[in-house]
Amino acid sequence: MTGARAVASLRETVAGLHRELTRYDLVIWTAGNISARVPDADLMVIKPSGVSYEELGPEAMVVTDLHGRLVEGEFAPSSDTAAHAYVYRHMPEVGGVVHTHSPYATAWSALGEPIPCVLTMMADEFGGAVPVGPFAMIGDDSIGRGIVETLRGSRSTAVLMSGHGPFTVGRDARAAVKSAVMLEDVARTVHLARQVGSPRELDPAAVTRLYERYQNVYGQTGATEEAQ
Amino acid sequence: MTGARAVASLRETVAGLHRELTRYDLVIWTAGNISARVPDADLMVIKPSGVSYEELGPEAMVVTDLHGRLVEGEFAPSSDTAAHAYVYRHMPEVGGVVHTHSPYATAWSALGEPIPCVLTMMADEFGGAVPVGPFAMIGDDSIGRGIVETLRGSRSTAVLMSGHGPFTVGRDARAAVKSAVMLEDVARTVHLARQVGSPRELDPAAVTRLYERYQNVYGQTGATEEAQ
Amino acid sequence: MTGARAVASLRETVAGLHRELTRYDLVIWTAGNISARVPDADLMVIKPSGVSYEELGPEAMVVTDLHGRLVEGEFAPSSDTAAHAYVYRHMPEVGGVVHTHSPYATAWSALGEPIPCVLTMMADEFGGAVPVGPFAMIGDDSIGRGIVETLRGSRSTAVLMSGHGPFTVGRDARAAVKSAVMLEDVARTVHLARQVGSPRELDPAAVTRLYERYQNVYGQTGATEEAQ
Amino acid sequence: MTGARAVASLRETVAGLHRELTRYDLVIWTAGNISARVPDADLMVIKPSGVSYEELGPEAMVVTDLHGRLVEGEFAPSSDTAAHAYVYRHMPEVGGVVHTHSPYATAWSALGEPIPCVLTMMADEFGGAVPVGPFAMIGDDSIGRGIVETLRGSRSTAVLMSGHGPFTVGRDARAAVKSAVMLEDVARTVHLARQVGSPRELDPAAVTRLYERYQNVYGQTGATEEAQ
Repeated sequence: MTGARAVASLRETVAGLHRELTRYDLVIWTAGNISARVPDADLMVIKPSGVSYEELGPEAMVVTDLHGRLVEGEFAPSSDTAAHAYVYRHMPEVGGVVHTHSPYATAWSALGEPIPCVLTMMADEFGGAVPVGPFAMIGDDSIGRGIVETLRGSRSTAVLMSGHGPFTVGRDARAAVKSAVMLEDVARTVHLARQVGSPRELDPAAVTRLYERYQNVYGQTGATEEAQ
Repeated sequence: MTGARAVASLRETVAGLHRELTRYDLVIWTAGNISARVPDADLMVIKPSGVSYEELGPEAMVVTDLHGRLVEGEFAPSSDTAAHAYVYRHMPEVGGVVHTHSPYATAWSALGEPIPCVLTMMADEFGGAVPVGPFAMIGDDSIGRGIVETLRGSRSTAVLMSGHGPFTVGRDARAAVKSAVMLEDVARTVHLARQVGSPRELDPAAVTRLYERYQNVYGQTGATEEAQ
Repeated sequence: MTGARAVASLRETVAGLHRELTRYDLVIWTAGNISARVPDADLMVIKPSGVSYEELGPEAMVVTDLHGRLVEGEFAPSSDTAAHAYVYRHMPEVGGVVHTHSPYATAWSALGEPIPCVLTMMADEFGGAVPVGPFAMIGDDSIGRGIVETLRGSRSTAVLMSGHGPFTVGRDARAAVKSAVMLEDVARTVHLARQVGSPRELDPAAVTRLYERYQNVYGQTGATEEAQ
Repeated sequence: MTGARAVASLRETVAGLHRELTRYDLVIWTAGNISARVPDADLMVIKPSGVSYEELGPEAMVVTDLHGRLVEGEFAPSSDTAAHAYVYRHMPEVGGVVHTHSPYATAWSALGEPIPCVLTMMADEFGGAVPVGPFAMIGDDSIGRGIVETLRGSRSTAVLMSGHGPFTVGRDARAAVKSAVMLEDVARTVHLARQVGSPRELDPAAVTRLYERYQNVYGQTGATEEAQ
């Protein structure tokens, strides 16, 4: 019962969050996907594969276990389900995962280059540079493993998978979406700066102070996700 | 009767798909055009010339034969009708054709340079680089011939006509529109990467594996157009 | 009476066309202005100065003579009225004038560099490169004279005033707006091409053939403004 | 009473102006903030921290004193409140302050480079180049002091804080928002020009003439904020 309610509520949440991806132009056509871990269950709610954004109501969402096997839903889950599932199995603190091909973050992914930390907003949100993960083929655990290993070596909630695109995580799905939105924003701003000059990296000590302050001090409720 | 119903249905479809061109900012003013082959008939449904996007209802669509001669409709057909018709005559597997001047794809066309395959999404969708066709004048079969000859040498459903802009094809009009949308997206992302560095081309064997998997495995119904 | 009706109708037209400037992101805040010549009268209808786009209804439009003196209207006319008036006095074939600070065209203006003709769409619309006019101060006839002298040496309906921005003309206000929309589009596409390579200029003979065909052959009614 | 009415009216104004920030794509998520000085009181009205733009009605606005201490409101004030307050304490002519991370202006901030005055619109609005302020940590008066010291050495109403982003001021909140909108526009146009060439700086004497004319002559009411 409680479990069924939690799933129903997450279907609503995950469906609604997909609208943020289109609002911020992070996805086109049926690309991009968001998932949320079901609390206290080895389950996740994820976008179906190949359904248009207009039709992504709560009832279209898919429930799988944490190996990506279908538990509930009319549609097949996203083709990136295995990567989401791997992240949930190996990062218990993560409650939400987002994948997009947002243009600036994906351009950095194509270059295989981290986004250097040249803005206070990057220090606040990502605690430093946004790291690059390996080139990994779809079809087994390679993508998920690449995400997890890269994130473990960084404060960042975002990783740029080489030749592919960004994945972001958060304590819940909304936080992972925020990370995806902020990532594309800083990916663009730093790209623009690089086009006409050489932006200076911030001093690492300043980055740490900004990051710790932002994660610990600000926000209405002590929650750190929404401060500004 | 069946023919008349098929035409009526395609008028709706083609008119509706033009909204995707404006939604994704692939066209301005009255530019851009979509056509669909009428199944089991030597006919196609195409956008009229010079009608604004607000007025592009089903009744404004034009029916021509596969030499571009007007069969039904109040308006003159698109000035690119001859190119669409040539494609249908020479590529029986094609059911839809789209032409836009979308900015990034057209910039690559102005350069006369293929878009290199540096992203898994390009491998999935286009099976490699997006090829360049010749510079061809309007007024005879030159454009159509250039499209067909270029596509025959490639897995791609998109071709960049030199000094002009992109044409895309698909098994139906929706698939050709999807190709146009994905093309502009990868044209932009690869352009962004090239502005600040040298993106690495993917290994051709990996490209083939990704392409075959995407075309054969994913999607809700075995259809390949919508997977993600 | 006829004159009053013509003015009333042009107030509607000019007010409505300003929505195209915002739709295509050619203007911000209260910037940009459109005017139309009143047929068979030494009058023009023009946007008022400093009124927000939400409030630009027909009744807000201003009527002046062809020296920019207020004839009818609650508001002061646009600060660019003198330039519009000069164009109407010296180019009797012009029925509409548009000025914007659209970003890509204005960037070329800042460089003081013509946009080279590297696309068939530029040949169709502008008959070649888009020319650059002089740097001219506001306050006398300098801007108007710069526009007229530059356009007289070119087939183009658009001119890039150095260090300032684009002005476009047409046989009526809608044609001038179309020129402004197409100008920003080609300014962007050629800019994008230039960022990553060296787009090739089209052969001048091909440019002439494309231009003459487009201006003379296409369109629903023999009108050339709308063909595609 | 009068004070309460002034505060109520400013709550409406400031809430409404935040919509201009989203309309012009100057902010994402909950980033960006606007404040207004309460006339004849040592108070300001400012955006709350971490509230989404959909929920930013008048009642969500926060009132603080000019040291940033909460006077009225359900939410905590913006994390940039100290900077706004410092500006009001030290620049009595300022009635509105805006902070965004708009992409092009922030890119110039990341470079720590002033935007050179290469457009008549920049001369009109900013009276010259847009200056760069120091890199300053959040948490004390450093940011506010950097803003004030930089603006005092310039005619500009905008300052690019190094490694952070732009702040703008105005005689009221609407004027500060206009400055933020115009700033992003010129930051983009000059960036575009720099990408493909070397835009020429305007002659300083011409800049002064344009600035003085625009500030003193144009507009419907003698007000200078809205002319075009």
